[in-house]
Amino acid sequence: MAFEYLTNIPLEKARAEYIETLKNNGFSPKTETVAVHLSSGRITASPVYAAICAPHYPASAMDGITVKAASTFGASETTPIILGKDDFIVVDTGDPIPDSMDAVIMIEDVVWTDDKCAKIFAPASPWQHIRQIGEDICAGEMILASNMKITPSAVGAMLAGGVMEVEVIKKPIVGVIPTGDEIVPPTADPAPGDIIEFNSSIFSAMVKEWGAEAIAFPIVPDKFDKIKEAVENALDKCDIVILNAGSSAGREDFSTEVIRSVGNVLYHGIAIKPGKPAILGYKENKPILGVPGYPVSGIIVIEQFIKLILEEWYASSEKGYIYKKAILARTVVSGLKYEEFVRVRLGMVNGKLVASPLNRGSGVVSSFMKADGILEIPQGVEGYEAGEEVNIRLLRNENELSNTLVAIGSHDPLLDEIMDMLHSSDPTMFMSSTHTGSMGGIMAVKRGETHIAGTHLLDEADGSYNYSYIEKYFPNGGVYLVECVERTQGLMLKKGNPLNINTISDLKKDGVRYVNRQKGSGTRILTDYLCKKENIAFSDIYGYDREELTHTSVAAQIASDTADAGMGIYSAAKLYDLDFVPVCMEQYDLLIPESAWDTPMVKRLIEVLKSDEFRSRLDSLGGYKLTNPGEVRRHF
Amino acid sequence: MAFEYLTNIPLEKARAEYIETLKNNGFSPKTETVAVHLSSGRITASPVYAAICAPHYPASAMDGITVKAASTFGASETTPIILGKDDFIVVDTGDPIPDSMDAVIMIEDVVWTDDKCAKIFAPASPWQHIRQIGEDICAGEMILASNMKITPSAVGAMLAGGVMEVEVIKKPIVGVIPTGDEIVPPTADPAPGDIIEFNSSIFSAMVKEWGAEAIAFPIVPDKFDKIKEAVENALDKCDIVILNAGSSAGREDFSTEVIRSVGNVLYHGIAIKPGKPAILGYKENKPILGVPGYPVSGIIVIEQFIKLILEEWYASSEKGYIYKKAILARTVVSGLKYEEFVRVRLGMVNGKLVASPLNRGSGVVSSFMKADGILEIPQGVEGYEAGEEVNIRLLRNENELSNTLVAIGSHDPLLDEIMDMLHSSDPTMFMSSTHTGSMGGIMAVKRGETHIAGTHLLDEADGSYNYSYIEKYFPNGGVYLVECVERTQGLMLKKGNPLNINTISDLKKDGVRYVNRQKGSGTRILTDYLCKKENIAFSDIYGYDREELTHTSVAAQIASDTADAGMGIYSAAKLYDLDFVPVCMEQYDLLIPESAWDTPMVKRLIEVLKSDEFRSRLDSLGGYKLTNPGEVRRHF
Repeated sequence: MAFEYLTNIPLEKARAEYIETLKNNGFSPKTETVAVHLSSGRITASPVYAAICAPHYPASAMDGITVKAASTFGASETTPIILGKDDFIVVDTGDPIPDSMDAVIMIEDVVWTDDKCAKIFAPASPWQHIRQIGEDICAGEMILASNMKITPSAVGAMLAGGVMEVEVIKKPIVGVIPTGDEIVPPTADPAPGDIIEFNSSIFSAMVKEWGAEAIAFPIVPDKFDKIKEAVENALDKCDIVILNAGSSAGREDFSTEVIRSVGNVLYHGIAIKPGKPAILGYKENKPILGVPGYPVSGIIVIEQFIKLILEEWYASSEKGYIYKKAILARTVVSGLKYEEFVRVRLGMVNGKLVASPLNRGSGVVSSFMKADGILEIPQGVEGYEAGEEVNIRLLRNENELSNTLVAIGSHDPLLDEIMDMLHSSDPTMFMSSTHTGSMGGIMAVKRGETHIAGTHLLDEADGSYNYSYIEKYFPNGGVYLVECVERTQGLMLKKGNPLNINTISDLKKDGVRYVNRQKGSGTRILTDYLCKKENIAFSDIYGYDREELTHTSVAAQIASDTADAGMGIYSAAKLYDLDFVPVCMEQYDLLIPESAWDTPMVKRLIEVLKSDEFRSRLDSLGGYKLTNPGEVRRHF
Repeated sequence: MAFEYLTNIPLEKARAEYIETLKNNGFSPKTETVAVHLSSGRITASPVYAAICAPHYPASAMDGITVKAASTFGASETTPIILGKDDFIVVDTGDPIPDSMDAVIMIEDVVWTDDKCAKIFAPASPWQHIRQIGEDICAGEMILASNMKITPSAVGAMLAGGVMEVEVIKKPIVGVIPTGDEIVPPTADPAPGDIIEFNSSIFSAMVKEWGAEAIAFPIVPDKFDKIKEAVENALDKCDIVILNAGSSAGREDFSTEVIRSVGNVLYHGIAIKPGKPAILGYKENKPILGVPGYPVSGIIVIEQFIKLILEEWYASSEKGYIYKKAILARTVVSGLKYEEFVRVRLGMVNGKLVASPLNRGSGVVSSFMKADGILEIPQGVEGYEAGEEVNIRLLRNENELSNTLVAIGSHDPLLDEIMDMLHSSDPTMFMSSTHTGSMGGIMAVKRGETHIAGTHLLDEADGSYNYSYIEKYFPNGGVYLVECVERTQGLMLKKGNPLNINTISDLKKDGVRYVNRQKGSGTRILTDYLCKKENIAFSDIYGYDREELTHTSVAAQIASDTADAGMGIYSAAKLYDLDFVPVCMEQYDLLIPESAWDTPMVKRLIEVLKSDEFRSRLDSLGGYKLTNPGEVRRHF
């Protein structure tokens, strides 16, 4: 097993030694010559000197007459000089000055005689009102130093300086080789067990953002010879090769052996999580990076090594990433052995940047898409406590973060519609939402992590929604409860209801597989209450401990026949074309802290809630009743 | 004359009304469908919903055995259960779970019996250690809202969610039509009077940076019918048309008439300088922008209107520009009638951002390339005083500005070589140099505008260089004088010296056309001194008042035969292959204020000066003597 030989090299050491090794083996940028008019955005490979002067001829800077200055000497108000037709030429601004002349007199300073001669009342000094050769650029002057980014105006300056071609750093070609027997090209109709190969698309897009060309090679099965052949082929065509292992751990992995057989392996195993099994390989001056199959691991490894290699290639002036201090919302524990990369959502809430850790599963590509930043926990650090100030690597720009409405709390697909409406109506505004259930949302408001929290918490005592919870958790008030919708909760069931489930009690029936929501979610609290009311023990329901985080994912389990029933809202059942037994209408509200109330995002949110479009979108989703969305139910 | 009808519309009013007019005429983005794997960086045109769940099948999250949970109920340490061969299947992480099973037991919790049955000591709960369908993405979930930029991980999320194609906003096509009889395509060998057409390359590069496609059409002569035909053709092919007038003012300009003949003109004449003659036109939903011919005017107009139009097209979340406060180095006067755009160099000197206005000539494209920012002086404001805090629109990022060595003072081509060496040895460091002559450099140090100033000021009293000037202008010290080079000053003469000029006195000869340096430059002070020593009146030398700002531009005048002689350094004469009569060796030093002394840029500069490469580069330039470059001559 290759895993037995894994090293655990600290990241910085691995980065430094990899670059040094590559450079010692001749790694350096290639250059190419391109037409100047197509060179904007490229990086110069050598200094650019002007070939000609700009302007390249002396030109009149005024409308007037061009003269020989000497012929005007002595002219004055009292002793004007009359220039004959051969002594001047009428010129417009920009006209070339003939060799015989060396000054321009402005047209308004000329008096015309009847025989079309020019009478002047002051001498012209040599070269007055003439735009001289080289005023803009002189031949031989350095227009651009080497390693400079070519701007649009630099394109103009080069062309003005007679430079038609420029030597620039060639875009390196990065080849991505996906491997794995279960891997299939992207499809909307994969068979069970098929793993959709999207890593090469992600990696290609990443390296393109960093200025490289990308070639995504076809999928290679898990066979030593085939992989070796693919790597050799890629080395022929590319400057840098990424070998992406199959996604399944516990399987044979030929990557190290293959890289050793065609070149060298500096290290196999870096002290990072995710991304530990990375392989730092090379053949001569070409890096071959072995990247783990899980997308999140792969992204981290590519960020740490391919970006570094491309920065070296381009001798980039801007290296690395932008970091920003943030307050950590929840305690994060990390192993001492690795440097860990934790994806976080960021919210600018009440003037503080707050970082909420996301799902750490390395197979969850959507979490990378949702992440606003990365918390990097160094090797040897056990983690950070909630409330600690931590350094976050930003994945989105600060301006966007400041204009993002943060929603943490109960899930409802209507939140996505709000997000779309908010951003469409004002493109400078964004929304990020995290599904933690209603109680999670209340706690997020308490901790100052969120601007809004969807909540639908039933008070078993009086059947009211939300009030009693808010009174309990916010004894001093400071929050607004804003009406959103009433929505239909009920049992989502397989199409046609083959098991004939009509009540909560039917969930006890033999053969019924239930799928539940997580503890703390409003829907779970509702389900628990309904069970108690009917005197049903939770253990009597098969799968009651099986937890999903959203209405949609509960519906997805039923639709894919891994469960028969689950509690959820009508719109989720409708989305998956499931049968639905309504149980109750419940109040789904938005809890908003006073500190967020006057923000432009919340104001816009209220406008969205009150809009006709919101009504019509929720009509399409189905199962909602809108009375006065956007109205304050109570200011606590 | 079209100019008689020019309006003078305030910029903000013009921008707002132009966009409103375009929208009222149906201006809106086109959309197109692209393959998801090629969609990174594009903007979604509509919300993207997942087509399938990811993962799309339940998969083992561990290496182990998959079982039916119910078959394990009751197992304990004391009452283990033995599962027969049909009751379990061995699975690796990632393997699909068959329909008949619903839990995974970790391999380490299984004891194998001799007959290969599995003995277990604890019950499995339904769906334990199984990665459930939709853990990452659920079918029907919104993956991306509309108008969102597609990131590499969003590409992965879409492919994982079974989305193969995505509707994005089409890149608008911007057509650029250059017009003018004197305009010629870029060439290294233009004839006198030819104006090199580089505007279309600049404008194309600009709009590409803002996300558009560009088509640069062939040059059209100054004829109404030809221009009209070109505009109609461009309207067929493009979404936005830029009509670039000929560069020469005072000539007929058909742009307005043509735009009126094919569509409408909202305004002709905006209250901005440069850029006043801009024409805001359109045909139906397509903008037609008339742009003045001078490159700087054109750039300003395109920044103000085309960027605005593209932001509207893309419903951009980031609009406009980034501004930063800076201290103005010199007073800038502006007309009340226009909003004026003044290019400035920026330097972070002694902790303050200092803005030094550049050449305001609108034909000088190199000044735009050298500019670090734009000072926008509103209409109705007369200008700003030296020392005032002003708002600067940044053209380079702040990080770069903080790492830029600012050089203001005497010109020498060696400064360009230093710039190249500085940046090549450390790509995070930049250098900007402005040629103001030695006295200008001393004043820039005094005003705190510069890190270094090249200076070679002769004390006529004792023949020493620089000391007495520094004592006079820095009576309290606070500056370092760093040795750079000795260099050969002399008379630069036409190749072969046809006028037989051998001494300063020969400049008085009839027919000798002299070209001088500007007042305050060390070379001018030297020349004045030499004349006085020889008792030559300045007025005895033809062209003594003709001023150029650099050695190179003096040499360029002689090489192009608009002058016969000029004082300058040997390296400039060599660059232009001129004859050279040496006059003296002079000391060229660098003056550095104490506040800059410990900056990384100055430290690196000293290393560069002391390097062997600096010696060898100056050897190639010629005419320099290096003794101890980089040593402190005196700390005042």
